[in-house]
Amino acid sequence: MPLNVPIVENILSANDRLAQENHARIDAAGVFSINLMASPGAGKTSIIEQTLPRLADKLRVAVVDGDIATSLDADRAEAAGAQASIQINTGGECHLDAVMLRGALEQLDLKQFDLLIVENVGNLVCPADFRLGTHKSVLIASIPEGDDKPYKYPGMYRGVDALVINKIDLLPYINFKMDFFQRGVEALNPGIVTFPVSCRTGEGLDAWINWLMQNVKRNGD
Amino acid sequence: MPLNVPIVENILSANDRLAQENHARIDAAGVFSINLMASPGAGKTSIIEQTLPRLADKLRVAVVDGDIATSLDADRAEAAGAQASIQINTGGECHLDAVMLRGALEQLDLKQFDLLIVENVGNLVCPADFRLGTHKSVLIASIPEGDDKPYKYPGMYRGVDALVINKIDLLPYINFKMDFFQRGVEALNPGIVTFPVSCRTGEGLDAWINWLMQNVKRNGD
Repeated sequence: MPLNVPIVENILSANDRLAQENHARIDAAGVFSINLMASPGAGKTSIIEQTLPRLADKLRVAVVDGDIATSLDADRAEAAGAQASIQINTGGECHLDAVMLRGALEQLDLKQFDLLIVENVGNLVCPADFRLGTHKSVLIASIPEGDDKPYKYPGMYRGVDALVINKIDLLPYINFKMDFFQRGVEALNPGIVTFPVSCRTGEGLDAWINWLMQNVKRNGD
Repeated sequence: MPLNVPIVENILSANDRLAQENHARIDAAGVFSINLMASPGAGKTSIIEQTLPRLADKLRVAVVDGDIATSLDADRAEAAGAQASIQINTGGECHLDAVMLRGALEQLDLKQFDLLIVENVGNLVCPADFRLGTHKSVLIASIPEGDDKPYKYPGMYRGVDALVINKIDLLPYINFKMDFFQRGVEALNPGIVTFPVSCRTGEGLDAWINWLMQNVKRNGD
């Protein structure tokens, strides 16, 4: 194997140190923060678009969007009502890391916000290996991705604090065995909090919003 | 940035050398080979499941499946009629590379086959950077992923030889602007051959099968 493992380990532990610094900085400002991860097209930006209007007049929200190219997602977050929206173009990198988030945090007056949503690059593998320093990691699964994803991407499913299952409006048109999916999730991440939702119909979003509100409130206490 | 660029470049060029060796080996055996790439859940395995029965009695097919964990995909390929099916578990790696494919090729008597299908790890970023040595790279896009994917994952869309657009049966239920999608594809990869298909209904699969057959025939000449 041409991969130089010790160097990779050094990169990861350097990343962890920076993630701790990010965490301390976010926490000191009284902001609750999430790292939103998913496959390409599972609905990270759609969830943000549905979440922000429901938090209007309740919370001040900043969004940091990671993408390989374009600022499409940051534009959508801003249009949906984010008080601040920063695009990180990773320049080909397949994940956000703590250095990139630090760069974005330096552009934000964190005390102006209650909630920071970091939208990672669409990827069900690599982002799981790079802590950013957020309070919680949230994975968005999607019905059309198929029910075997926990089995095939265990690293991602194992490492998150909450699971949104998006596009449940497509269940009638897709052969998705929810029991099989849930058994895989439960084996990797017992008791994880789960939100089946549809960004199209709005179904299930209230529970997700309540979870965010409770965490923001708990973080502020 | 903690990333040591020269070392990464060395890894990539070592990979390219091994990819050339794989290519020479596959080509000398008279096998036509494709590297099938896509997001998690776009339908790589479903395409293989639909393709193999349509090639039965025409071509002898070997399938190499890359996954982070499980042998679910190789099992499905074998059930669908692959004459040989090899699972590569990458052990956490987010892509196949030429070394991994070499290991699989060593287990195959290549002269027994006309077509080799390599199913990469579900990932719309990293696999684009690692040549395997196959004749053609094929990307599977999927309607529920959304129409903005060419814009957001340009490296993948730029580097492939053919594009399958799967799950077109879901078009009535999803806001997917085919014009916008196609403009993005065309800007990155002008004139790329494209196959809109549904693995659920079978629509469009004949054109895909013809393309494979023609390439196998041309390769054998």
